[in-house]
Amino acid sequence: MSLVIENIGQLVTLDAAEHDRPIRTDAALVIEAGRVAWVGDAAEAPAADSRIDAEGAAVIPGFVDSHSHLVFAGDRVDEFEARMAGRPYTAGGIRTTVAATRAASDDELRARLRHLVAQARAQGTTTLEIKSGYGLTVADEQRALRLAREVTDETTFLGAHVVPAEFAHDRAAYVDLVCGDMLTACAPYARWIDVFIDSGAFTVDEARRILLAGRDAGLGLRVHAGQLAADGGVALAVELGAASVDHCTHLADADVEALAASARDGAGTVATLLPLVEFSTRQPYPDARRLLDAGVAVALATDCNPGSNYSSSMPLAVALAVRELGMTPLEALAAATRGGARALRRTDVGYLEVGARGDAVILDAPDYRHLASRPGVPIVRQVLVAGEAAQ
Amino acid sequence: MSLVIENIGQLVTLDAAEHDRPIRTDAALVIEAGRVAWVGDAAEAPAADSRIDAEGAAVIPGFVDSHSHLVFAGDRVDEFEARMAGRPYTAGGIRTTVAATRAASDDELRARLRHLVAQARAQGTTTLEIKSGYGLTVADEQRALRLAREVTDETTFLGAHVVPAEFAHDRAAYVDLVCGDMLTACAPYARWIDVFIDSGAFTVDEARRILLAGRDAGLGLRVHAGQLAADGGVALAVELGAASVDHCTHLADADVEALAASARDGAGTVATLLPLVEFSTRQPYPDARRLLDAGVAVALATDCNPGSNYSSSMPLAVALAVRELGMTPLEALAAATRGGARALRRTDVGYLEVGARGDAVILDAPDYRHLASRPGVPIVRQVLVAGEAAQ
Repeated sequence: MSLVIENIGQLVTLDAAEHDRPIRTDAALVIEAGRVAWVGDAAEAPAADSRIDAEGAAVIPGFVDSHSHLVFAGDRVDEFEARMAGRPYTAGGIRTTVAATRAASDDELRARLRHLVAQARAQGTTTLEIKSGYGLTVADEQRALRLAREVTDETTFLGAHVVPAEFAHDRAAYVDLVCGDMLTACAPYARWIDVFIDSGAFTVDEARRILLAGRDAGLGLRVHAGQLAADGGVALAVELGAASVDHCTHLADADVEALAASARDGAGTVATLLPLVEFSTRQPYPDARRLLDAGVAVALATDCNPGSNYSSSMPLAVALAVRELGMTPLEALAAATRGGARALRRTDVGYLEVGARGDAVILDAPDYRHLASRPGVPIVRQVLVAGEAAQ
Repeated sequence: MSLVIENIGQLVTLDAAEHDRPIRTDAALVIEAGRVAWVGDAAEAPAADSRIDAEGAAVIPGFVDSHSHLVFAGDRVDEFEARMAGRPYTAGGIRTTVAATRAASDDELRARLRHLVAQARAQGTTTLEIKSGYGLTVADEQRALRLAREVTDETTFLGAHVVPAEFAHDRAAYVDLVCGDMLTACAPYARWIDVFIDSGAFTVDEARRILLAGRDAGLGLRVHAGQLAADGGVALAVELGAASVDHCTHLADADVEALAASARDGAGTVATLLPLVEFSTRQPYPDARRLLDAGVAVALATDCNPGSNYSSSMPLAVALAVRELGMTPLEALAAATRGGARALRRTDVGYLEVGARGDAVILDAPDYRHLASRPGVPIVRQVLVAGEAAQ
């Protein structure tokens, strides 16, 4: 079966081979057997088995959200409200979600997860990474990844999210568990391993041990670092060849240089920025301009989670990147698609040229820049995953 | 025909008579002949001809967006991109839209207008004020209001938006026209008259003359003031008993005192805040906390327009009010519903108690505070206007 999308007012291909022409006008796109088979001027479009009339709308690659935490139970909106009011709130935090998640049935977790995935899809996300990290026992972490694997191939083992309460007085034993039985149980369901480096979570030395164990188990590496301070996690991520280091809000000059050198080397380590977290925690935003000007590979993702940011909106992440991070609309869109794909070491998604997976989003707008100039508006009209209607 | 909405996890009534109980849990709501006929505990809900199962979701009053400019043609996203990049852009501004609007056919204007109204509706807006102001000739202003009147009763004559290019050297003649033939032609299609007080638009003295002419023609009064400076417009609005003064980003202490005194007097003048404009222009946000603490009546609206803000998202306005303006989630929701109704001197919308119009929004969320904690997510599941499904 082949499908032609005709009457595209503006087609954002992000074709890497055509840096000077990332956008076509009056274009058409043909998807066949799940892949982009043809891109060109509308007047020359070949025939296909079915057709979509884009009615002059902009068409973009599906968003690649390379950072989310969607397997959980409970609701922390009381904590959100207290934070926004500047009130102390001691009952909150990741451990609250851990307790609720452990107590939930598979069906409860699955229903919430599928609902969140459907919401993300409706906003144009066609590739979605999902982390564990609210189980923090061997069985609960494995369960989270098993459920996540039902909805995505991009699953990440995050046993090293925080030290759970029952190990508060024996961190070393928890790190042993993560590197041992928990990793063994989780690796079959995970593509990636991740560690949260933060004063309230894990040290750089602990992270090194956990990441090396994960690498030995065949997992790719990801790191949370630099959310609240320049904590040394970026250097570790680059040293170990992690695919991505996420947050990057607080960076030393040496961190920026290391990331830029890594990007020049090819695959390297992507700096993944998560501005919805700063929106939802009222923290200063990361400086994307500094990274882009230095030659760092940058991605945008949501970090959708029940605590520090509960939004799954890639369109709003793009708008914030333009409003707050110093990115142009095209840089922001590229970071939210092609950048996310690079952060997942994927070469089949995040762009729309011949050979790419047929993941395309038809906007309810004639210009992709409306993603930035119309924040909050439901601007996604239709989502295709491998050429199939996704909603 | 009667309709019962059952299984409401959280019903935000904003009942003015029950300040201590603006939110009910485990509630049901009955709408009959377009009006709320019954509110109470789900277990006691009376029978009705049809039913909606809210499945535990939150139900809120429909948003009342009391400030928008939706009758226009053209696209100013180039100007938006330049503004975000800090580049000068001299070809932009309201006059660009005036030229495009004058050149457009009725059908072009109507199609855009209806599309924008449908997008607003899908985001939960059930009452929508729409201004003219991109025609600036007798015929073009009248046309804008005639088209706006097709979709809402809340139409506002804004001939005094800017002085059009052809009157640049004779402002007084344009003010004469606005107060004379243009007002005469427009008044039959308008409920309100509005003036943009700003260094680039009209002075306080010009505004006074125009507003008094409008009042003599039977129109209610609205004012744009304080967007970029404390310009004296607030004092004028309060003095003339305007229903609302909009923007209020820059206020002198005396302005706040005048608004508070006005609120104590009853109907008074509402301060309508438009935070999506500050988002889209990267300007400092207004201080809602200062106003609320002083006892001012506050509304939130979008100011959706092709230039300074093209978002029609009342949910994002609520989220920004919590993130940036110092409002609690409940204060923000009340300002976006009941506050907007007060700004339009409407007593039939903006709340959900017996006698109110049956304008209700069923959220895709169990808690109304998710409007603030989940920015950008399409969080509106179903919209009812006078008890009828609106989408």
